[in-house]
Amino acid sequence: MPEGAGRTPPPRGFPDSEFEARLERAQALMARDGFAALLLTTEVELRYFSGFLTQFWQSPTRPWFLVVPLRGKPVAVIPEIGAEAMGRTWVEDIRTWSAPHPDDDGVTLLAAMLSELAGAGGRIGLAMARETHLRMPLADFERLRRALPAAEFADATAILRRLRQVKSEREIAKIAHVCALVSEAFADAPRLFFEGQSEIEAFRAFKMACLRRGVDDVPYLVGGAGPGGYGDIISPPSERALAAGDVLILDTGSVFDGYFCDFDRNFAFGQADDAVRRAYAVAYRATEAGLAVALPGATCADLFRAMQAVLEAGGALGNDVGRLGHGLGSQLTEWPSHAAWDETPLEPGMVLTLEPGMSFAPGRVMVHEENIVIRESGPELLTRRAPPELPVVA
Amino acid sequence: MPEGAGRTPPPRGFPDSEFEARLERAQALMARDGFAALLLTTEVELRYFSGFLTQFWQSPTRPWFLVVPLRGKPVAVIPEIGAEAMGRTWVEDIRTWSAPHPDDDGVTLLAAMLSELAGAGGRIGLAMARETHLRMPLADFERLRRALPAAEFADATAILRRLRQVKSEREIAKIAHVCALVSEAFADAPRLFFEGQSEIEAFRAFKMACLRRGVDDVPYLVGGAGPGGYGDIISPPSERALAAGDVLILDTGSVFDGYFCDFDRNFAFGQADDAVRRAYAVAYRATEAGLAVALPGATCADLFRAMQAVLEAGGALGNDVGRLGHGLGSQLTEWPSHAAWDETPLEPGMVLTLEPGMSFAPGRVMVHEENIVIRESGPELLTRRAPPELPVVA
Repeated sequence: MPEGAGRTPPPRGFPDSEFEARLERAQALMARDGFAALLLTTEVELRYFSGFLTQFWQSPTRPWFLVVPLRGKPVAVIPEIGAEAMGRTWVEDIRTWSAPHPDDDGVTLLAAMLSELAGAGGRIGLAMARETHLRMPLADFERLRRALPAAEFADATAILRRLRQVKSEREIAKIAHVCALVSEAFADAPRLFFEGQSEIEAFRAFKMACLRRGVDDVPYLVGGAGPGGYGDIISPPSERALAAGDVLILDTGSVFDGYFCDFDRNFAFGQADDAVRRAYAVAYRATEAGLAVALPGATCADLFRAMQAVLEAGGALGNDVGRLGHGLGSQLTEWPSHAAWDETPLEPGMVLTLEPGMSFAPGRVMVHEENIVIRESGPELLTRRAPPELPVVA
Repeated sequence: MPEGAGRTPPPRGFPDSEFEARLERAQALMARDGFAALLLTTEVELRYFSGFLTQFWQSPTRPWFLVVPLRGKPVAVIPEIGAEAMGRTWVEDIRTWSAPHPDDDGVTLLAAMLSELAGAGGRIGLAMARETHLRMPLADFERLRRALPAAEFADATAILRRLRQVKSEREIAKIAHVCALVSEAFADAPRLFFEGQSEIEAFRAFKMACLRRGVDDVPYLVGGAGPGGYGDIISPPSERALAAGDVLILDTGSVFDGYFCDFDRNFAFGQADDAVRRAYAVAYRATEAGLAVALPGATCADLFRAMQAVLEAGGALGNDVGRLGHGLGSQLTEWPSHAAWDETPLEPGMVLTLEPGMSFAPGRVMVHEENIVIRESGPELLTRRAPPELPVVA
């Protein structure tokens, strides 16, 4: 049994009513925007409307399609290898082909189905805008367009974003669970990390601690260490040994039942110099400032400004991350962005990261991160709040 | 220290000479096919030409670009957050923007750079064909086309495939290492798996065994169990408890330094019925038949036919996987496919899976998988060969 087993995990999967509610909201927005169907191709899009959960997406070989019609349930057009697993979801109409195929990897089947559901001249929505991509060969998409010459393919990102940005209580429970498990793993830091250990071994020890606690997987674990601070927060760990005076950051996206946490923690070894302790305290206060304004009706830009003001007053030399937090859910990062240009209003049910970060000296960066859900009354922390002072591992 | 530390791991990363050799081969093929530049957008494409290795690709927010010109070194056009990490690779020309950006996520910068390197009317190669996708918002790709109205965007998949399909000895060493570590973890099965354990806990125990042995990560671990056999090989484990008479399959893509293994193992609990023992023996013999013909000059279709003949003679009711193995390397699955339609000739340095599988009874599937590298003298097994008879966990 995992060590986190004392904590009752939320049930896996969702009842059909969850998918019915998603579909109903999608179809209302489709009607408003004049879409006859949505064509979905990515892991997270298919999972949102079907519940289809598999790591098989690691294989780039086969395209997968789900079509959401204006009326009726989603229809899957997928490789035969997925028929059994898709058959266990609430999707009923599952059309398959033997994939990979030498010259028609589902395109003819998909075109026929889109014609049937959307009509020859229907307006078909795709994710085309920021933070999306089309997961099918570009040449196949061109073939699909030629097969449906009267159809209009148009951007439906706004609909997908609108739906996914506000989470249901069932979704929030999964994110809260993985945040709690990883918070417990971070509390083990004094037992997990030690001077002389390589970064690679420290990260491996932490990954195993998360798994022991009960996370399903740790698809994202980046960071590093350096004397008096680290310079980069997206790299894999190195073979360098942790030493006295180092500051270590681990930033993890661990998952439970397909839902992510995304937060980090900082640790000093032996002692910490004044500059890094000050930078830590500034980032802590910036998070507090973000928490203070994270109320329904405020915007992501408000969150950005509240945190940025503290960072600038605290001596920030800059921030190369491009934002101070973002949405979180079935992806490590989702819309919206806490940036001066993002006026998305906060709403109850949004799950967000607060991620104030700055360069505090040349080549030295300090980043904090917490995960919250917006409630009517304000932010609810899903992560166990980082300590106000830089923790030192003896 | 990981338990696999007795096995000396190959060095991480590659010397610049490896990237120089890749670039030289690429540019020769580009000259042959009339490409002025290659535009690359996916994790594996960028990593192949730059060595840029990070799990940050989990975040879908930011596009990343690498351009391979006809002459000179690759040029990176990337979000500012990646500048430090890209700066540690052999790439010298790194152009960045603050991403995410509200209305120009690198497109203007990329267009200017393509114009500079490829000329206004240059032919720009992209991966557009089977087993590829474009990792940037479709709307941004349309913007890029409008910004370069005279440029021709054409499919360059054949070049990328030609390059990546034959591995260097340094690449083979990384794949061999992860295959060896996971083979050792599978040898622990009698200590890892037991009746009464849930599938989820069995998979977690195996994942931790792989990490203890020294793999960097286990991004792919699927399978399941059922009485007398399993029905599906792409699903995550369930909460069902393993019971006497079950057959369990685990199929894993674990990684070391960005290179995958991809193989599976089958285990019976308590006892195994005759049908599943026979099916196991048939799949074992099918693999042997594949090994017997895996010589330079034979084709993937030859491999398919050799394995398929044994499966059919052994009572196969069908195979919904669509092929009997594939390429393997920096992705879990790569070109080519062992299928009747794939006449790709085997060459020394190709790393392949042999993956004979079949339905042997309604709803019951048997799949074997081994990883090999083609040598002048024949196939070299990278995985420790599965036992010829279905192993039974007491």
